[in-house]
Amino acid sequence: MTDPSWKYENFEPAGSAIGYRIVRKLDEVQSPFQKIEIYESTDWGNLMLIDGAMMLTTRDNFLYHEMMSHPALFTHPDPKQVVIIGGGDCGTLREVLKHPGVARAVQCDIDEQVTRMAEKHFPELCESNGDPRAELLFDDGIAYMAACAPGSLDIVIVDSTDPVGPAEGLFNKAFYESCFRALRDDGILVQQSESPLVLLDLILEMRGEMRKAGFNAFQTLPFPQPCYPTGWWSCTLARKSGGFGFREQDAADKSFETRYYSAGVHGAARVLPPFVAERLER
Amino acid sequence: MTDPSWKYENFEPAGSAIGYRIVRKLDEVQSPFQKIEIYESTDWGNLMLIDGAMMLTTRDNFLYHEMMSHPALFTHPDPKQVVIIGGGDCGTLREVLKHPGVARAVQCDIDEQVTRMAEKHFPELCESNGDPRAELLFDDGIAYMAACAPGSLDIVIVDSTDPVGPAEGLFNKAFYESCFRALRDDGILVQQSESPLVLLDLILEMRGEMRKAGFNAFQTLPFPQPCYPTGWWSCTLARKSGGFGFREQDAADKSFETRYYSAGVHGAARVLPPFVAERLER
Repeated sequence: MTDPSWKYENFEPAGSAIGYRIVRKLDEVQSPFQKIEIYESTDWGNLMLIDGAMMLTTRDNFLYHEMMSHPALFTHPDPKQVVIIGGGDCGTLREVLKHPGVARAVQCDIDEQVTRMAEKHFPELCESNGDPRAELLFDDGIAYMAACAPGSLDIVIVDSTDPVGPAEGLFNKAFYESCFRALRDDGILVQQSESPLVLLDLILEMRGEMRKAGFNAFQTLPFPQPCYPTGWWSCTLARKSGGFGFREQDAADKSFETRYYSAGVHGAARVLPPFVAERLER
Repeated sequence: MTDPSWKYENFEPAGSAIGYRIVRKLDEVQSPFQKIEIYESTDWGNLMLIDGAMMLTTRDNFLYHEMMSHPALFTHPDPKQVVIIGGGDCGTLREVLKHPGVARAVQCDIDEQVTRMAEKHFPELCESNGDPRAELLFDDGIAYMAACAPGSLDIVIVDSTDPVGPAEGLFNKAFYESCFRALRDDGILVQQSESPLVLLDLILEMRGEMRKAGFNAFQTLPFPQPCYPTGWWSCTLARKSGGFGFREQDAADKSFETRYYSAGVHGAARVLPPFVAERLER
């Protein structure tokens, strides 16, 4: 065994970096879309990097996966049909399937290798892949959403990499129009929306594109996520109309365990600090 | 001008690192206590490092300074006498002095060079140093607290570096006993309490020492802080008895501006995620 060394991700758009002390490289594959690397770290379990960007660690992925799923599912009155675009590590799928009312959850990631790597190195995230309600597709999410039957979905979760490379087309009006059409009137679109500290412009731009596609109500929820730049991340929810009151009692009485999400945390995440609120709400 | 390069802090206890893209080193001084370095960064303004550890950046220090001060000052019924132990960059002092009811705020940092460096490279943090209510001492905080008149203080804020080196003595029963004695019955002790994600053991240990010194009620408030390990940080409040209800209306009606703190954010920070609450409250 070699001595531990450090693996950094320099995040150029924000001029900041995140790093982990690693023991060794466990795996690497160059898929048709991107390079996926797996490292063993000294304190964070395994790490997955895609094209050099930290995607997840064993230790802290619960923050992201819980916040990408439960706020939306407890905001919708009765979510049954869920589609996840991206999300190849299967962690969001696992959280979605914890909701007993969900009848079907489709995960559509363009890169099968992400899921194969997750099965090997993050098996706990894949433990619901055999659920009869789960359907794993390895296909183009843009084409999948464009082909969805109108008004057939309750929730669309866009669990993608940053808006460069394969995921670029998941952050524009054309894609959001497909989501809008596929969602029922009370449906919810959720997307990871980067760091509210340094990338507020991106959140505003994303909301602008969603608005052009017909969405009229937005909610951005911040949460801690150490493996992403600045350690502070967010998801943004969009609806065709209406607000974001959530089923607080159902969330408090939920039949499954979560480590970060709770009814209280959901309510608390709705309170944006002044410097974020001023930019998003002006 | 040289090309930008990257400056990392490897945080050994958590096996994680934080880094910034820097333009150049602006200053460096070896004080009798520690090495202080100042860098200019491309996106975060100036950085201060002490013995290689990131202390603050121009861009994100408001998160820490606001959360180290306002929650305690809006929890106390009428804070007049405040002491800050450490805090040599003067950012916490500036926030404390925003409260018109504060009659006197003493900042006692062992290292005068921290303040001299802040005056040069973070002048905005020092803009209240000339306030007639401010008193800047450069002395041993442990000795200062031990010599304080009993029952003379409303708030003690321990704004120190990590519990190694010069700050080690600020995390134990003996020091907390001095704080306990110096505080009035309704007084509040506040201390930065590291990352709730990776250093829960340290928070528990700190609470244990505070309890041995006589404190009976505790509150840990998490907040984002990109320049500290994991990007998620916390402060811990301790009282002799009673709870942590706060002057919510006063906070909502406050006469000064804040960028992160608000009455809503204060309330939201009180909601701990399950994985933190389970450890701290068991």
